Amino acid sequence: MTDPHPLEAVYEPLAVSVRKLIDVTIRTEADAAAVLAARQLIDTACEQLSVELMPGSFGLRTTPDGQGSAWGNVAIGIRNPVAPPLFVHHEPDGQVWTEFVLGAAYEGPAGHVHGGVCALVLDHVLGATAHQPGRPAYTGTLTVRYLRGTPLGPLRAQARVQRVEGVKTFAVGEITDGHGVTVQAEGVFIHPKQRPPLEAGPAA
Amino acid sequence: MTDPHPLEAVYEPLAVSVRKLIDVTIRTEADAAAVLAARQLIDTACEQLSVELMPGSFGLRTTPDGQGSAWGNVAIGIRNPVAPPLFVHHEPDGQVWTEFVLGAAYEGPAGHVHGGVCALVLDHVLGATAHQPGRPAYTGTLTVRYLRGTPLGPLRAQARVQRVEGVKTFAVGEITDGHGVTVQAEGVFIHPKQRPPLEAGPAA
Repeated sequence: MTDPHPLEAVYEPLAVSVRKLIDVTIRTEADAAAVLAARQLIDTACEQLSVELMPGSFGLRTTPDGQGSAWGNVAIGIRNPVAPPLFVHHEPDGQVWTEFVLGAAYEGPAGHVHGGVCALVLDHVLGATAHQPGRPAYTGTLTVRYLRGTPLGPLRAQARVQRVEGVKTFAVGEITDGHGVTVQAEGVFIHPKQRPPLEAGPAA
Repeated sequence: MTDPHPLEAVYEPLAVSVRKLIDVTIRTEADAAAVLAARQLIDTACEQLSVELMPGSFGLRTTPDGQGSAWGNVAIGIRNPVAPPLFVHHEPDGQVWTEFVLGAAYEGPAGHVHGGVCALVLDHVLGATAHQPGRPAYTGTLTVRYLRGTPLGPLRAQARVQRVEGVKTFAVGEITDGHGVTVQAEGVFIHPKQRPPLEAGPAA
């Protein structure tokens, strides 16, 4: 493990606060006056943070300052309040897994994770197992099979490489809750022979 | 068109403010003191909104108060700051389409939409075309084919029913940018014969 980047202590807690704010924004039953007062605080915070903004998205920063390139990523970005974020663990045998909790912000059917969010999680973990250091891969095809509804709450996702055929890596994985598998996926990932295209890399 | 629900004017602008805050949280280069000050405002807003919270997620509200059941939805929810949100238009012939803008919050590869977010959008619009009033459908399988990277910015998604076989509806759709199709999808949706299961309905 390397020491955390010093800017992590500045920006990560901000994203944690905003994640909590997202949850209560959806679930609040406060009255109109209280909501208006909260909005004014939020708008003021927004102005204060906007005094210095990088142009464009996080990945397009023109001055690399040592911040992790995936800090803005919608699945794993510690600076992105939309990301749960997923912390993806790599086992020595190439398998990957992540344990995470999805709350109200990821709802589709009542009390359940949106099927598209399941696809997002699986796209990311399948990509993480297909990607290898120095041998980036981009997603060609992803097939997601819904066995039953995935309840909001604590979940696990895992993936592994099934086989490799030339430039193609076939990966499979699933999401499980306390009662077993809810969603399965298989993905075909392409390793470009020349320099990586735009979709390359572990950032899916 | 029906008149908007009176609570829409209270809660929708709050979600709009939080969406803007999400974007600047990812992109800010303000110093540690400014970030700390902003966090304190955000935490205060969070406390004020938390004085009255519905238990659990939005869809599980125990007191239906006329708010749209999809207001908390991660794809289309006007109260969910994680949702772009998508506004899905239904044509008389059953086709659906939506035009939307994805910014820094949805990034995967630098400057591009995360492949999993493309899957989320397609899952939702394909589900919207397969679902019919009084005849809900749930997603059985979704296959997503990535033709090239989808740039952050203005995008369009559309979907249509290809064929119906018994309880199965086959839908296809795609995401396009200014230069054409970036991602294609096909989905198999199941119409339950008995009462709808948990994944049923247009909320995907």
